[in-house]
Amino acid sequence: MTSRPRNSDQTRARIMKAATEEFAAYGIAGARMDRVAEHAASSKERIYAYFGNKEQLFDAVFSNSVQAYFDEADFDARDLPGYAGRLFDHFADAPERLRLSTWYRLERPEGIGLQSVIEANDVRVKAIAAAQDAGAIPADFTPVQLLALIQSLSTSWATMNPEFASLAGDIGRRERRDAVVQAVARVVGIATSDG
Amino acid sequence: MTSRPRNSDQTRARIMKAATEEFAAYGIAGARMDRVAEHAASSKERIYAYFGNKEQLFDAVFSNSVQAYFDEADFDARDLPGYAGRLFDHFADAPERLRLSTWYRLERPEGIGLQSVIEANDVRVKAIAAAQDAGAIPADFTPVQLLALIQSLSTSWATMNPEFASLAGDIGRRERRDAVVQAVARVVGIATSDG
Repeated sequence: MTSRPRNSDQTRARIMKAATEEFAAYGIAGARMDRVAEHAASSKERIYAYFGNKEQLFDAVFSNSVQAYFDEADFDARDLPGYAGRLFDHFADAPERLRLSTWYRLERPEGIGLQSVIEANDVRVKAIAAAQDAGAIPADFTPVQLLALIQSLSTSWATMNPEFASLAGDIGRRERRDAVVQAVARVVGIATSDG
Repeated sequence: MTSRPRNSDQTRARIMKAATEEFAAYGIAGARMDRVAEHAASSKERIYAYFGNKEQLFDAVFSNSVQAYFDEADFDARDLPGYAGRLFDHFADAPERLRLSTWYRLERPEGIGLQSVIEANDVRVKAIAAAQDAGAIPADFTPVQLLALIQSLSTSWATMNPEFASLAGDIGRRERRDAVVQAVARVVGIATSDG
């Protein structure tokens, strides 16, 4: 814990929550600081003092979201289908996180070298390489290839066009998750218990 | 050909080109009609007269992009890896098309039932079902599942976070394409010539 007074922490938390909703809904350019202030029951001045400008507030929100991914999806290079299932759950439980990530890609196509993102990439690629070196998983795709393929499969349902919902509507969450897990197992080249 | 005078067609084409660039760069909310008019060497009044409001101009641009996908990617349910390779090429050649599709998903999360998109979904799902019924491809994934999985694999490189570029930078276009084709073959459950 820091020495910040408790009500300051609560204000920060309210701002983060309101900013997450605002950026997820409208993106970086479309987000409005006065709406964040209103929903956080705070003020624009307070937000600027705590987080800096709108771009910096987005960085804080998005880094926070990437950290949540790290904590929840629990990357395991030796069980990539299992990881894919957890990643599916992670975004199914909190669709706003995938939206934040997508806005980030669209609105900052060159990236800004966000430390949390660089680290997330780096840790996963190295872990896959180590698992391949140890013979725990096949090595016919490179670690970078595998990461790109698995990541996209994990979010496949959430990245279809909205009209697709009418076709996929009768496919429940469990079936979608199973399809992702099974597909990742096939791409990696390992069997799953139900495969 | 219609009976429209030739210079009218040229103006429409210039507007479509400028609007495609504008929407791909800034999205629907972020696009500015005066910028489109300037880049098309036309006027906002002319754009409104030809296409309607900004939302309708986006519909025209996005429908046009979906039609280009139909013409170029040449969906073939009996050769899904081949289709995935063409889809990869389609978006690698014109990244703005994937951006349009992504803005559409973010900014119109409920969809608007765009006819070109509904049709694209419908045609592909039915073709996969027919290929499965004929025994041409395995039927262990449903057509809707297969479409979601294949579509995401085809765009896997383009949907990674921007920071990923520094890791993937030494992987050339040909290798990325091969990884997509090979991964789709594995998911579908068929062998490829190089697999």
